[in-house]
Amino acid sequence: MLWLSIDRNLDASLTRQVYEQIRFQILNGIIHVGEKLPSTRELASELKISRNVILDAYDQLFAEGFIEGSRGSGTYVSEGTFLEDTSKYELVVPQQEESSEEKTSDLIDFRSGIPALNLFPKKKWSQLTQRMLADHNDFIFGYGHPEGRMELRVALCNYLHKTRGIRCSPEQLVITSGATQALSLVSKLLLTKGDEVCIEDPITHDIQTIFQQPGVSLYPVPVDEFGMITDMLPSNKKPKFIFVTPSHQFPLGGTLPIQRRIQLIQYARESGAYIVEDDYDSEFRYAGPPVSSLQSLEPERVIYIGTVSKILSPALRIGYLILPQNLIHHCRELKWFNDLHSPTFEQLTLAVFVKEGHLEQHIRKMKKVYRKRRDFLITCLHDSFSKGLKIYGDSTGLHMVAAFDNVHFSEETVRKVEESNIRIYPVEKHSIRKGRHQNKIILGYSNLSPDEIKEGIRRLAMYV
Amino acid sequence: MLWLSIDRNLDASLTRQVYEQIRFQILNGIIHVGEKLPSTRELASELKISRNVILDAYDQLFAEGFIEGSRGSGTYVSEGTFLEDTSKYELVVPQQEESSEEKTSDLIDFRSGIPALNLFPKKKWSQLTQRMLADHNDFIFGYGHPEGRMELRVALCNYLHKTRGIRCSPEQLVITSGATQALSLVSKLLLTKGDEVCIEDPITHDIQTIFQQPGVSLYPVPVDEFGMITDMLPSNKKPKFIFVTPSHQFPLGGTLPIQRRIQLIQYARESGAYIVEDDYDSEFRYAGPPVSSLQSLEPERVIYIGTVSKILSPALRIGYLILPQNLIHHCRELKWFNDLHSPTFEQLTLAVFVKEGHLEQHIRKMKKVYRKRRDFLITCLHDSFSKGLKIYGDSTGLHMVAAFDNVHFSEETVRKVEESNIRIYPVEKHSIRKGRHQNKIILGYSNLSPDEIKEGIRRLAMYV
Repeated sequence: MLWLSIDRNLDASLTRQVYEQIRFQILNGIIHVGEKLPSTRELASELKISRNVILDAYDQLFAEGFIEGSRGSGTYVSEGTFLEDTSKYELVVPQQEESSEEKTSDLIDFRSGIPALNLFPKKKWSQLTQRMLADHNDFIFGYGHPEGRMELRVALCNYLHKTRGIRCSPEQLVITSGATQALSLVSKLLLTKGDEVCIEDPITHDIQTIFQQPGVSLYPVPVDEFGMITDMLPSNKKPKFIFVTPSHQFPLGGTLPIQRRIQLIQYARESGAYIVEDDYDSEFRYAGPPVSSLQSLEPERVIYIGTVSKILSPALRIGYLILPQNLIHHCRELKWFNDLHSPTFEQLTLAVFVKEGHLEQHIRKMKKVYRKRRDFLITCLHDSFSKGLKIYGDSTGLHMVAAFDNVHFSEETVRKVEESNIRIYPVEKHSIRKGRHQNKIILGYSNLSPDEIKEGIRRLAMYV
Repeated sequence: MLWLSIDRNLDASLTRQVYEQIRFQILNGIIHVGEKLPSTRELASELKISRNVILDAYDQLFAEGFIEGSRGSGTYVSEGTFLEDTSKYELVVPQQEESSEEKTSDLIDFRSGIPALNLFPKKKWSQLTQRMLADHNDFIFGYGHPEGRMELRVALCNYLHKTRGIRCSPEQLVITSGATQALSLVSKLLLTKGDEVCIEDPITHDIQTIFQQPGVSLYPVPVDEFGMITDMLPSNKKPKFIFVTPSHQFPLGGTLPIQRRIQLIQYARESGAYIVEDDYDSEFRYAGPPVSSLQSLEPERVIYIGTVSKILSPALRIGYLILPQNLIHHCRELKWFNDLHSPTFEQLTLAVFVKEGHLEQHIRKMKKVYRKRRDFLITCLHDSFSKGLKIYGDSTGLHMVAAFDNVHFSEETVRKVEESNIRIYPVEKHSIRKGRHQNKIILGYSNLSPDEIKEGIRRLAMYV
């Protein structure tokens, strides 16, 4: 007789318990090929459970090919059902549900690009989500199109035209899973082996990795406090595209003046290159409205990348690409074979959020908050470091750069600083040609309270 | 004097109107380099608007480098601000907000893999979203980790262990944007130039495209009504992986018997290949509980891909990969550089939906609905095509395959059939080696009402 153990307290049904144990014994050769199984009646009486349970378990084993035979003649283990188990695998299903990083701690993290998380418009978002789910046609629960929802593309076009001077039609937009996916789509869209890309130096390390495909070379163009030094674009190269963050260079924070913008466009025209404009946080320009986009100057050559990660929340993973006409079709195809399209519900919720003006309202509110934090950080820096301090890139966005005379932010320095429970980010980490920015760090302030800013700078001053 | 037109009825602020028109005139050479602009006082009085408006507009032009000078000495157009406009671009912002396809029409579409859209659990989803937004720590509004939320990974592990016999820990899961992203990650994770992949033939056309990278060759292994004919796996090849849909082959619908599963695993062991198991709709097995996964037989060699697109909604774009230990790190890295991570809110909502048993409840409910539709479709088919009809793959899932004696579903036939407002899907479209399945079509029934099914088959019968 089979040795099976039945436990009525388990989550698994009795049928599943019987099925799984017999299956296990067959697979592991405990019951052999050709061996006869007990009749369902015998087994039911042995285990003191309903015969239907056994019948269902046998049906399943029969359907999967483990056993064969007919009711009259008995049930036998089929051929080819033994599998030597070579795995050293042990199942451990942990029950922890929280990432360790989310535990509140004393750490003060100057990471850049994190909006004030406690000011996300939860209630409004929740309301709009409810309304969206209730109001829409059931089609929204099905598959969508790679370029994303028309409602969102129209809303963004209008918003971008109004606030950034963007010249585009909704046709030209592809909604992406954040700016990162937009960058990785651009990379696939434009780059093949042997291509060159001109890129600001320093520039976010992640972006370097995304463009650094096999056979593609990155040509670093130095950056000063006004952004890319366009005079230094290489005259002897034909880059596929030039990557810039003209509204608020990352990390140094410069805003590219019109003269350099024009020089850049003329360079692109002459070399036949595209320009990729990454516009990640320019909505927060403290001295006035955001500067106009590069895209508005040359819509047929500039690929514009935007995101709601900084103005709303990175957890939404919503960004977008604005493409010249001739790239639209191919980009949609790439998006389709990457992940079909971005999730529908949040696109629709965001569309209403933008259309009804909540986004602009939220930006106005946050700009006030961030301006205060920025001003306070500058005050704290000047209080703690009266001499030898220079601040860059504080006109816009969610971070600034602080340079300190005679300090070298080596890995060792950073480690030492972190011992007092603050986290800082050296510019040098984002440099392609090393050695020019060793005395600078990036200070993100948007998700830090005034108290945290003050305490953070106090701790920093102990080491620097 | 500058010619500017101010319109108080426009959406754009007065400052923006002044700024944009001057900017336009400078860029286009209407005002020349070196030319003196009117004083803010003059211009304000000319346009009959507040001088502050003009001051703000000039500040912005100054900040962007268009003009220079100081209050005393007058304001001049800077050098390098003229850009020849080579664009033929005209701005058209259309106001349509609905995709044309969503208009209700008389079309009856037998597209497979679409859940019954009108039965999405809107209310429950809405409630859980609200609760999720209200309950969680503000950390959820920030950036997450590439592998996705721990809450969801734990919930899925428990669910998959219980219902599909999957052996894994949450560590091994990476949450993806649907199964498509999981497939494209697998492709990047495992394939390099010169590699071979064994793949079922026929198999979804999109999947062929995703694996068909430059320098990678696909070796088609024929499929019969029981799935991949594992006897035909090539003994002289060392494929990087073998791609299978063992629970419900797409499109033919077979369920791979244990003998072939074991043969497949032994082949993979000998050739050092991984097995990629795509398990897209096996929850809906009408004859009993779903068959066990291939993953449970060989967790160290099988990469398992799952999705909630069929059991809940494709609009959510949530799928997942279960990976052997040695692939976890690299896969997380690839996900990070693709789109950082999948959106947080819907992961958290889904986690609760699974954990509290709503998913299993929803699947039970939908299984009853789909079983009825399936049975009714079979009845309709038999009523209309008494002779020469064979049905495949109806034991599981959201579609079946119908084969008709002496019919060839050429492009022309399909076009003709579509004239009567039904859409059908020939199996041959998904064949790699053409010519074997010309008489078969895929009939998805899950999103069609009984009336639509009846009418659809009536229309089909007019042509076939």
